[in-house]
Amino acid sequence: MEKRKPKRSLKMSVFDAVQTPAERRIEALSDGVFAVGMTLLVLDIKLPTMPNEISSHEFIHAIFALWPHFGVFVLSFVILARAWEVHHYIFDYLVRYDHTLVYLNMLYLMAVALLPFSTSLVGTHSNFEISAAIYAANFLALSGITLLIWNYATRDRRLVRGDIQPELIAWLKKRLVLSTVINCAAILIALISPPLCILLLLIYQLSMVIIPFLRKNSSVAE
Amino acid sequence: MEKRKPKRSLKMSVFDAVQTPAERRIEALSDGVFAVGMTLLVLDIKLPTMPNEISSHEFIHAIFALWPHFGVFVLSFVILARAWEVHHYIFDYLVRYDHTLVYLNMLYLMAVALLPFSTSLVGTHSNFEISAAIYAANFLALSGITLLIWNYATRDRRLVRGDIQPELIAWLKKRLVLSTVINCAAILIALISPPLCILLLLIYQLSMVIIPFLRKNSSVAE
Amino acid sequence: MEKRKPKRSLKMSVFDAVQTPAERRIEALSDGVFAVGMTLLVLDIKLPTMPNEISSHEFIHAIFALWPHFGVFVLSFVILARAWEVHHYIFDYLVRYDHTLVYLNMLYLMAVALLPFSTSLVGTHSNFEISAAIYAANFLALSGITLLIWNYATRDRRLVRGDIQPELIAWLKKRLVLSTVINCAAILIALISPPLCILLLLIYQLSMVIIPFLRKNSSVAE
Amino acid sequence: MEKRKPKRSLKMSVFDAVQTPAERRIEALSDGVFAVGMTLLVLDIKLPTMPNEISSHEFIHAIFALWPHFGVFVLSFVILARAWEVHHYIFDYLVRYDHTLVYLNMLYLMAVALLPFSTSLVGTHSNFEISAAIYAANFLALSGITLLIWNYATRDRRLVRGDIQPELIAWLKKRLVLSTVINCAAILIALISPPLCILLLLIYQLSMVIIPFLRKNSSVAE
Repeated sequence: MEKRKPKRSLKMSVFDAVQTPAERRIEALSDGVFAVGMTLLVLDIKLPTMPNEISSHEFIHAIFALWPHFGVFVLSFVILARAWEVHHYIFDYLVRYDHTLVYLNMLYLMAVALLPFSTSLVGTHSNFEISAAIYAANFLALSGITLLIWNYATRDRRLVRGDIQPELIAWLKKRLVLSTVINCAAILIALISPPLCILLLLIYQLSMVIIPFLRKNSSVAE
Repeated sequence: MEKRKPKRSLKMSVFDAVQTPAERRIEALSDGVFAVGMTLLVLDIKLPTMPNEISSHEFIHAIFALWPHFGVFVLSFVILARAWEVHHYIFDYLVRYDHTLVYLNMLYLMAVALLPFSTSLVGTHSNFEISAAIYAANFLALSGITLLIWNYATRDRRLVRGDIQPELIAWLKKRLVLSTVINCAAILIALISPPLCILLLLIYQLSMVIIPFLRKNSSVAE
Repeated sequence: MEKRKPKRSLKMSVFDAVQTPAERRIEALSDGVFAVGMTLLVLDIKLPTMPNEISSHEFIHAIFALWPHFGVFVLSFVILARAWEVHHYIFDYLVRYDHTLVYLNMLYLMAVALLPFSTSLVGTHSNFEISAAIYAANFLALSGITLLIWNYATRDRRLVRGDIQPELIAWLKKRLVLSTVINCAAILIALISPPLCILLLLIYQLSMVIIPFLRKNSSVAE
Repeated sequence: MEKRKPKRSLKMSVFDAVQTPAERRIEALSDGVFAVGMTLLVLDIKLPTMPNEISSHEFIHAIFALWPHFGVFVLSFVILARAWEVHHYIFDYLVRYDHTLVYLNMLYLMAVALLPFSTSLVGTHSNFEISAAIYAANFLALSGITLLIWNYATRDRRLVRGDIQPELIAWLKKRLVLSTVINCAAILIALISPPLCILLLLIYQLSMVIIPFLRKNSSVAE
């Protein structure tokens, strides 16, 4: 983003900086759903009710037994962080919106709102194929609907700024297609080995966060 | 909205774009309640505590047994999405507000906040007439209070922009009356057949989302 | 507010309308806590786990048994609505803030965040004096801290606009003192009769919402 | 802040007051996570299910037995209040952001989102060393990541305003280092005496809130 920012600030005007209330409210609703979603994830990390006379050793054991919940908390937080970044990137380029965009965004927020459910499912029942498959399907919904939104908004520059470069449109689309393909593959892998599915999702998400640091190139990644 | 937007942008000025903090805060509170409401809906979709030695087949069965919860999650999300869109549409036309509007809006937010309760009720006890009736009554509260807000705000253009067309006022009012009548009917139908009531609400809500797409006409629908 | 608005809009400028990010964020945090608080109240209204073979009559009975929870939900929602309105009214007059104001506001938000706890307590255990007393104490915290904030901000016009009328400062202070006294009285009454305490709080809060309508005078009330 | 405000308002312009949507959304997401985090803390303060025929004396006893939960609620609220204040202070100086800052901030929000978990842990199992150590580690994560953000943003004034005084950069860094060291010490003390650890955290946090009042100096403290 740093690369893009200075450019934009050159032609910055009050009208660039100030959004209409309409655009602001779609973003406010979305940010609210992201924030609540991120915070509700933690409700799944909790100790079972334990007898009072538990020993210190048993207690530490119970804490460590929470690691699958903690692991998927981190993974779900990372996907929400990346989803937020891309959402924010796309909405930065939007200058208009219409009925279709509002409802594509609502569909997207539904996928965000479902993440605490699928996270809890895979955290509690990580041994079942169906849990991992539902979790991966939730990731697929996020990347797939983002792809729909980007395609819809950029076709004939319907809803985006006229001065957006074609390379940028193509670049983000390619990234979103890659994410969608990987999330599809993760569903199939879940049916063979749930842990492998989670591992694949974790490696892909973390690498998408880390690669920009290695490149010393601060562009948004999906 | 697309139809309306270009028009407005012609006469756009800093004063059109920038809201006073007062208006912004009513919208911020409302968006917050919508966002938390949408996200809390998911807390109702959860597996019952299950024995550890459950078979994969039993687990899949338990997942599928969640479908009524998932179904009403989707329906409640759609009504909140549509309620948000109409709320946002109305507040876009407001240029003033007063004590009455603030408290009509609070009554409205109370109906939004109650939706996770009525959704959970009908998801868990869908076989009881009273559950479906309470759920439909919650929908009725949403459309009825919106109608009150719109009537109050537009009477003698009390709180809305002076340049709002009378056709637009009448059009939204007609839509809100229709929603209110259908939600009343749904309560009565609930007392005869709960599933029929849910089906009616689902068909009506989805059709109000889908019809604008068919018309290739992106106006807001209620 | 309507009375005040037109006046202000006459001398409205970009600097009146646009807040600094700093002021906006205190309000955003506060609105978030209000919105989440309002929505969490509903988590307390839920049916106990019921046997599957329950009759329709027993189910309706269980629904009606929720009325104390529903009653305090409404009362708590009304106090939060009024608290939000006054908070918003006060912050509209603020032009500066300092360390003291930030932490008085944090103390206030703590009282808002505790309301779902005290509401749940009185909804579940309405027969105990201590429940009603804690609930009334939470109301007292809200009105008392608001009074502190108003006194602190208006002393020598420390943090408020220079053109604020002394009558307005005195009027809101008088209202807040009245609320604080009534909430103190409610704590004492709770120790004698919990239902009487709840009734007093309900009558006072509702009358403060309704009186402005009767007067056809849309000023903010506390 | 009061000291700083008047200065800034002298050189205030539309561009100072109006943030770009991008900066606003990072703050909006952060404020949302803070607001939800603060409010979720209360979910941990609840009475156990009690028999119906409980005596008034037993009920009062059960209320008082909640004091550890209430105590850590207050402590966690105070740390979130202070964390919000410092976050807000830092973001006030930011004029740019990049991929690294976005993800450092996400890591920070993860620590905020985890606080309701660690608070619940230490509230329920305050007698175990590991609980207090995890709680102190959460405090350490908050101060440590804030230090990373401040160092990253201010190195060569990468992301902050050019006119920021070197003394201010050094002053906040010193404070953050102190917090980080104390939180490290708290983890070690937790392994010896959990109550002493909580007491240390409480004294430090409260003193950081109270000292500015004593000094009649309204600067931000960490």
